[in-house]
Amino acid sequence: MKLTILDSTLRDGLQGEGVSFSESDKRKVILALDKLGIAYIEAGNPASNPKDADLFQSLQGISLSHAQLVAFGSTRRKNSRADLDAGLKGLLRAGTQVVSLFGKTSPLHVRRVLETTLEENLAMIRESVAFLKEQGRRVIYDAEHFFDGYALDPQYALETLRAALQGGAEILCLCDTNGAAYPADIAGMTRAAAAAFPGVCIGIHCHNDCGLAVAGSMEAVRAGASHVQGTLLGFGERCGNADLSTLIPNLQLKQGYSCIPRDCMPSLTATARKVADIANFSLPGNRPYVGGSAFAHKGGMHIDGVTKIPSSFEHVSPESVGNRRKFLMSEISGKSGLLARIQKYDPSLTKTSPKTQEILEQLKALEYRGYQFEAAEESFDLVIRRALGLQRKYFTLDHFKTIGEQPLFGRLHPSSAMVKIRVGEESQISAAEGNGPINALDLALRGALTHFYPSLAQVRLTDYKVRVLESDATTAATVRVLIESTDGEHTWTTVGVSTDIIEASFLALRDSIEYKLAMDEDRQA
Amino acid sequence: MKLTILDSTLRDGLQGEGVSFSESDKRKVILALDKLGIAYIEAGNPASNPKDADLFQSLQGISLSHAQLVAFGSTRRKNSRADLDAGLKGLLRAGTQVVSLFGKTSPLHVRRVLETTLEENLAMIRESVAFLKEQGRRVIYDAEHFFDGYALDPQYALETLRAALQGGAEILCLCDTNGAAYPADIAGMTRAAAAAFPGVCIGIHCHNDCGLAVAGSMEAVRAGASHVQGTLLGFGERCGNADLSTLIPNLQLKQGYSCIPRDCMPSLTATARKVADIANFSLPGNRPYVGGSAFAHKGGMHIDGVTKIPSSFEHVSPESVGNRRKFLMSEISGKSGLLARIQKYDPSLTKTSPKTQEILEQLKALEYRGYQFEAAEESFDLVIRRALGLQRKYFTLDHFKTIGEQPLFGRLHPSSAMVKIRVGEESQISAAEGNGPINALDLALRGALTHFYPSLAQVRLTDYKVRVLESDATTAATVRVLIESTDGEHTWTTVGVSTDIIEASFLALRDSIEYKLAMDEDRQA
Repeated sequence: MKLTILDSTLRDGLQGEGVSFSESDKRKVILALDKLGIAYIEAGNPASNPKDADLFQSLQGISLSHAQLVAFGSTRRKNSRADLDAGLKGLLRAGTQVVSLFGKTSPLHVRRVLETTLEENLAMIRESVAFLKEQGRRVIYDAEHFFDGYALDPQYALETLRAALQGGAEILCLCDTNGAAYPADIAGMTRAAAAAFPGVCIGIHCHNDCGLAVAGSMEAVRAGASHVQGTLLGFGERCGNADLSTLIPNLQLKQGYSCIPRDCMPSLTATARKVADIANFSLPGNRPYVGGSAFAHKGGMHIDGVTKIPSSFEHVSPESVGNRRKFLMSEISGKSGLLARIQKYDPSLTKTSPKTQEILEQLKALEYRGYQFEAAEESFDLVIRRALGLQRKYFTLDHFKTIGEQPLFGRLHPSSAMVKIRVGEESQISAAEGNGPINALDLALRGALTHFYPSLAQVRLTDYKVRVLESDATTAATVRVLIESTDGEHTWTTVGVSTDIIEASFLALRDSIEYKLAMDEDRQA
Repeated sequence: MKLTILDSTLRDGLQGEGVSFSESDKRKVILALDKLGIAYIEAGNPASNPKDADLFQSLQGISLSHAQLVAFGSTRRKNSRADLDAGLKGLLRAGTQVVSLFGKTSPLHVRRVLETTLEENLAMIRESVAFLKEQGRRVIYDAEHFFDGYALDPQYALETLRAALQGGAEILCLCDTNGAAYPADIAGMTRAAAAAFPGVCIGIHCHNDCGLAVAGSMEAVRAGASHVQGTLLGFGERCGNADLSTLIPNLQLKQGYSCIPRDCMPSLTATARKVADIANFSLPGNRPYVGGSAFAHKGGMHIDGVTKIPSSFEHVSPESVGNRRKFLMSEISGKSGLLARIQKYDPSLTKTSPKTQEILEQLKALEYRGYQFEAAEESFDLVIRRALGLQRKYFTLDHFKTIGEQPLFGRLHPSSAMVKIRVGEESQISAAEGNGPINALDLALRGALTHFYPSLAQVRLTDYKVRVLESDATTAATVRVLIESTDGEHTWTTVGVSTDIIEASFLALRDSIEYKLAMDEDRQA
């Protein structure tokens, strides 16, 4: 059975503490979610938040493969007209095909928070939905506090849904806004709603205040819901929304529902990590399905067991979600990504070749020091190439020095860098100024190398990320820098790790350059 | 109805990646769990792990108020005698009143992992339990893979439980060892076990591979289980065990079961944070009940709602678990959260005061530039204090210079910094070396200032985070630095933003220092 998934990372997710995205971050998240096959992407509340309004403007004309963009907003203000309501107009201006509208379900809230009558609330819902429909929008109606409201007054709760339906809503989404409802109760009330409106798409939107958002969503689906809302990584107000990276595989791989296209499922882990990276969020290792340790076995008996019967300690195959089994002692699984990648460079190597073992040990040692290659595949390739003797040394660093200075005393730039490199017998020294020490270093390094390798002039950096690891050791902590580069044709990501942010950046820059030069050579050959 | 809780942080919890405790850490955890009122503390597997054996020796004679210590181990080896089994002897040597014994439930595992007969497995269980009982122990029997086993062969699964009961087991604990079972199915099978052994205490032990460990445990309790196993913070193999810091309040505050003494519940949050500290684990803000953001409200409408009806967005009172409500400041919450904070400094200000408007505008402008104050409340306080004329200028930066250099040419440190500051008429210049430019700058700055403000010698940094904003502009992008500082008594977080990571760090450091000095002055007044 087919379910439609709505991701609200960019709307509900942003109501979580410590979560914020720049506009370009949001675009990247949208593209990643679209690639994963998510049906609806709720990208903001344009009437409430000017940045969201700007985002929707800039998203006009964006080309998506799977997803519909959704703008979120409130029913009209009480005692006014839908067609004159500033909020609804803001919602329309977003220009999305689909809108989410939220309204009150509980008499308690209608009287004490909205401070209006039960009748007026129904009119607010009905008229707002109808207005948006007239303007050509498809409407998802979010019944706020549905479960509390239904418990208090089941009749009225269903009236509010009916009002939305009368207005022309396509989906009636039941929201457990305070995260308090018990899954079995959610099932009962969802069943009642589905029975009251046969043939209508019922949705579910849970919060995780009791650690039950995933369970509640699944129970709602069992009871008849066919639209499921959450956020990819569980971001959201207070304890967050239902975690889609858990929910989607639970529903699709374990219960046979269709949530995303089949061939998108193996991208789940990579997508989760990508969005985590964009959010500068450290994805916990023990996150179901997508965490680094989700399939990591430590206990000796467990390793023995899972080797004999994988299902004894693995309820799905790691590869089905794009993850891999990990042994916290040294082991390689035949089909794992590592061997395939090595064989790309030397097909004669097998699982048991000494060289393979050597490369695995190097990778483990680097990972132990803080390197992470999932998001930096090209640095990974360089480790393999160097181990196999395939990587020429394109330059040697003789010396670099960076200087940062405040105040500026009339200068334009706070930082400068000097770099001396050597290629064969010939040296080149270059200097540059920049907005910071790393900017200056990047410019100086490439300035020196372009003398020997003119193709480097086409290389630009397109992304730069810093992650402080073991941050308890504070400013003496290890830093991991990720750099994304492009030459206009290809894009590649490299990584550097050090306690010194400048050295870490240098290592990532050096790998970027070496990878580009190796690519150029391979293409000439 | 009374439930007994067993915490396995020090046994199952240690099978999670990245979790390790020293012996003195373990003692601290035991005392904390005991103080919380946990009934059983499973402290290790002495036969399998020599460190655990040592721990149990050192715990002889420990004085606990609520808890029983439990040693964990396996049934005897196949085709041998319980009284000659080294593992069981090791279990006894631990000297605990209570032991947990695990055995196989599924025919698949008995044949292919243990490689023995179904009958022998029953004997292993029965005889091992009986032996321990004869030696005066109370036995909790853990039926491994119970739910998979029952699905495969319900008859045999119940036989294994019967064997344990015949041996004298006090609790029959059903384990979802691979975390794959669905809560509704757990309920059905638990009901069957309870019906097969009326009057016997049935236990539940779930894993979180599907994000359903808490839900599964609760369904088992509804179906008749009265013993619940988990780990306080959800640590454990792969995706962890059932999170007791969520499960206990769910069962006790929301469903009326008695899990821990009533007057222990308000210590839940403090205990969770203490154990997290001991584990060097950063407790996520969005953890139910005990997370820093569990009761944190951001959306303006939510703040409005929760002020009018707390239950609208808070399903239990924060104080009941020892947590507190928090309003987050951000562009979304407009004036609601902000006002409360401003009134802390000047109670005469209202929503409409010009000063309030001015501060809001400053906040918006800073946030637009990349500042984020939710995680850096003290920097925000400084914005308010400065706007209200309450913040003295404690020092002026004359000049700083940082130098980063590679290779090291025999030096120990890649970076050095020189800082000159002025307090009134007097200047102080200081230099330091460090692992990176920011480490060096931090040391040099505080070195210079301690001359004027000796209390700064007590300040240490405890966390340092870097976030690159608008990272498409790459190494020239804006950088946001967050710093957490402590003087041993208080902890505070400050922020700095710049395109230059060094300047951003300096601004965060400066705010940290100014906040500390302001706090000192306020306390003297």
